[in-house]
Amino acid sequence: MRLAIVGGTGDVGGGLALRWGRDTSHDIVIGSRDPERATGAASRYADRLEARGYTPHLEGDANAGAVEGADVVVVAVPPYTVTDAIADVADRLPADATLVSPAVGMRGDDEGMHYHRPSAGSVTALAADAAPEGVAVVGAFHSVPAARLLDLDDPLELDTFVVGDDPAARSRVHELAAAIDGIRAIDAGPLANAPEVEGLTPLLINVARYNDGFEEAGCRVVTPSGR
Amino acid sequence: MRLAIVGGTGDVGGGLALRWGRDTSHDIVIGSRDPERATGAASRYADRLEARGYTPHLEGDANAGAVEGADVVVVAVPPYTVTDAIADVADRLPADATLVSPAVGMRGDDEGMHYHRPSAGSVTALAADAAPEGVAVVGAFHSVPAARLLDLDDPLELDTFVVGDDPAARSRVHELAAAIDGIRAIDAGPLANAPEVEGLTPLLINVARYNDGFEEAGCRVVTPSGR
Repeated sequence: MRLAIVGGTGDVGGGLALRWGRDTSHDIVIGSRDPERATGAASRYADRLEARGYTPHLEGDANAGAVEGADVVVVAVPPYTVTDAIADVADRLPADATLVSPAVGMRGDDEGMHYHRPSAGSVTALAADAAPEGVAVVGAFHSVPAARLLDLDDPLELDTFVVGDDPAARSRVHELAAAIDGIRAIDAGPLANAPEVEGLTPLLINVARYNDGFEEAGCRVVTPSGR
Repeated sequence: MRLAIVGGTGDVGGGLALRWGRDTSHDIVIGSRDPERATGAASRYADRLEARGYTPHLEGDANAGAVEGADVVVVAVPPYTVTDAIADVADRLPADATLVSPAVGMRGDDEGMHYHRPSAGSVTALAADAAPEGVAVVGAFHSVPAARLLDLDDPLELDTFVVGDDPAARSRVHELAAAIDGIRAIDAGPLANAPEVEGLTPLLINVARYNDGFEEAGCRVVTPSGR
């Protein structure tokens, strides 16, 4: 499978690239607005993995070039640039690509971080509105802290929630998420349920602020044992 | 300590009464609009605990009588009756009582359950608006499934998030929550952060709907191990 990461020089994109580079044999293309930054980041990620004995398939390119031929494209950019980032690559996106949206809209005040819902309903829905006709959008990785993905010694043991309207695309992203060691993917249903998924991130940030030792917290769903 | 549970005949109130009856030595008063239902529920809870060898301090009364002399009052009623339930007991509430609000406003549609934020900002804020001057309100227990509290063989191993503006009241409720075996209480900051806490419940309900074996799911915050 060929994975492109638009905004792959950032923490979320870099963390996913490192994890997929280590835990899968997929081809990974780091995208950036600046192609030199993209190739620089790709070779830094490859160096880190090779130093640990892995042989990742990592390259870099401008965002629009990165998405060519990709099966899955992660839009790893801040929420307010999601629409523009998708528009920039729309012409080059394969018609059967799946877009993954990990961004969360938040606003902080003196007391904490709050979920800031865009008028589309969620950032995932914003991405779906911006995507070319027929390209499925799936939300995932919202509540997995980037710093923990970047720290390859962190065992994670975290859940991520996957939302989207296209069952095949959702299941493709579910498998890609579960392919990362220490991540469990959990289905949260259609796009309409994205606000509840995205809203977990500000809760975890507030928990980190008001409790010692909870920095970079993630979440794990606990089911009744023995049932 | 004296604990009153307004709406203590319901699942959330009953589950908390059973757990506190088992795991603490507090006096617990079950409140209901109908005092006979309250005493009936209190004696059923006491029977269940005595059959397991515990000696709980449980009695029942009409809601207004139940709150007299209480240190902590749990308002275990549906979200749309929180305001009325508090108004019904306001005259009898001790001036230094702490109110606990576990309710969540939700609306379901064909695709899932969604957080439905009251105009006050959250159900916890709604309760704070309804409370008499000086009575502190703390949100807690939103994401702990009532069915799991009621099943005394369930080890829980769940987190609950505690929010409120009064630090002393928040810490009192934090300790009460943590006194239940298998519950970890986590501070989520002031009342302004209640929407993020309450919003976790519809996410967990959606997860139960879209995944086998996730009925009555709760959540546990996962911190980076070794840090």
